Amino acid sequence: MNTDTKPLFGRVALLGLGLIGSSIAHAMRRGALAAHVAGYEPMPEVLARARAVGFAESWHSDIEGAVRDADLVIMAAPVGAYAGLAEAMAPHLKTGAILSDVGSVKGAVMRDVAPHVPPGVHFIPAHPIAGTEQSGPEAGFAELFDGRWCILTPPPQSDAAALAVLTEFWRRLGSQVEVMDARHHDLVLAITSHVPHLIAYNIVGTADDLSTVTESEVIKYSAGGFRDFTRIAASDPTMWRDVFLNNREAVLEVLGRFSEDLSALQRAIRWGDGDALFNLFTRTRAIRRGIIDAGQDSAAPNFGRNAKPKA
Amino acid sequence: MNTDTKPLFGRVALLGLGLIGSSIAHAMRRGALAAHVAGYEPMPEVLARARAVGFAESWHSDIEGAVRDADLVIMAAPVGAYAGLAEAMAPHLKTGAILSDVGSVKGAVMRDVAPHVPPGVHFIPAHPIAGTEQSGPEAGFAELFDGRWCILTPPPQSDAAALAVLTEFWRRLGSQVEVMDARHHDLVLAITSHVPHLIAYNIVGTADDLSTVTESEVIKYSAGGFRDFTRIAASDPTMWRDVFLNNREAVLEVLGRFSEDLSALQRAIRWGDGDALFNLFTRTRAIRRGIIDAGQDSAAPNFGRNAKPKA
Repeated sequence: MNTDTKPLFGRVALLGLGLIGSSIAHAMRRGALAAHVAGYEPMPEVLARARAVGFAESWHSDIEGAVRDADLVIMAAPVGAYAGLAEAMAPHLKTGAILSDVGSVKGAVMRDVAPHVPPGVHFIPAHPIAGTEQSGPEAGFAELFDGRWCILTPPPQSDAAALAVLTEFWRRLGSQVEVMDARHHDLVLAITSHVPHLIAYNIVGTADDLSTVTESEVIKYSAGGFRDFTRIAASDPTMWRDVFLNNREAVLEVLGRFSEDLSALQRAIRWGDGDALFNLFTRTRAIRRGIIDAGQDSAAPNFGRNAKPKA
Repeated sequence: MNTDTKPLFGRVALLGLGLIGSSIAHAMRRGALAAHVAGYEPMPEVLARARAVGFAESWHSDIEGAVRDADLVIMAAPVGAYAGLAEAMAPHLKTGAILSDVGSVKGAVMRDVAPHVPPGVHFIPAHPIAGTEQSGPEAGFAELFDGRWCILTPPPQSDAAALAVLTEFWRRLGSQVEVMDARHHDLVLAITSHVPHLIAYNIVGTADDLSTVTESEVIKYSAGGFRDFTRIAASDPTMWRDVFLNNREAVLEVLGRFSEDLSALQRAIRWGDGDALFNLFTRTRAIRRGIIDAGQDSAAPNFGRNAKPKA
């Protein structure tokens, strides 16, 4: 495509103005991708905060006003809210519009949204693999998607032109784009994102419950490794509840493997099998190297952070 | 103490010149804490690399030459090597010297080292809660201990003056110092460091084994959370093997709790208990806040890292 000089879309509606929604808005503005951004958020308090940051042209607490005449509609709310959103907006969608999302699960999104999509509207789910542990309309920034991957999971017989435009959209937001089917997406993300979040939440909960070790000790000595898990375990609770409720099958499958492997490690520790431990610990180093070489993480020790004590 | 203007020690021997040993050397030089630093490393290749970096006054592949006349001897090798080191150096230790270490377990260090300590030598184990995922004599830097905690576990009836000097030493290396008994240390560290490392190694191993998801997919989409675990799982394999072999009891206890809690989460996902998930995910956010407020981690989103894709 050679359309770098004019906006890709006349009007884009963002349904949900948290970390991801607001980051899309900032990145669209950076790339001049839309003539008009319409922001929708049902909670007045959150809508007011978003308006104070000021990343859209119009602000809506009614979904009809937000999606009317939109060329692209992006759902950026917790996935548990999608079915209700889709049903409410369906009568108001423009023929030829693209309907997409940013949800971390894709099978459930197909299941919940597809039945409501009117003929002539192109439904193409998307998932940018990007985020931070922060949330809300103040948390967004234009660079969030730079260099990260965005996975599109078009249903069979999707419109090729709509897919091409959405691909171009995510490229101009800074992402690299990959296409796969929803089922495979959900399995890949179970291992690269969902189960890691679950075990991070779990270890932080276990630490909090251990009455023989005080919370202040857990906090003081967290630089031994624990603190890394707390970052992930500070992610948005509603979003993550919905992820686990909506990717049950893949999460339980990967979790089963994880628990099996952990039992083997537990046994190696109990029986003093140093070779088994050493072999695993050596193998895992190579994966880290691959991630750094692929530009998906910093090579600096400790992620380059340098937390100084407070005075 | 008011001795900030002259070196605390005449001669300090560092037994092991990896990340921690070399960082101590750099920090001692920064603070002018020793008139002479003697570096010991049995492998000629590693000794040559350390010498090339140049953070000691003398270099030794024989332990006798390293510890002779030393006022402070610090073992900074994997803890599995301590018993052999202690036995070999014992006849050559100066009366009045302090013998210490940096090992991540303390009960086993007491067990392995104490029997070899000659009368008149003050044995006070130590554990700085600091590190990076890198290893070797090139990995050290003077700021590693700044603002981190160092835990001392003096045996009963330790010499008070020796304990005071070692406390002052770690303060001048940049640390805050805490004293506790070895058994409690091992339990605290099991939760704040050892089990987090074990589950990080484990999830990276599980991902590597999942034949339905390719390694390149794991790497590409690692920004969803997985990449955080790979940093920890890139830590030194020998050191970590020895930690698990030498803190078996506490690690198995915490691991048992972790697995119980994970089973409960698994069940919540299977039965769609969103409230149980939401409640845990909300509770864990507070711990992160505590760690940031305590100056033990960066408040910046994503640890402040900003990995750009390679061209």
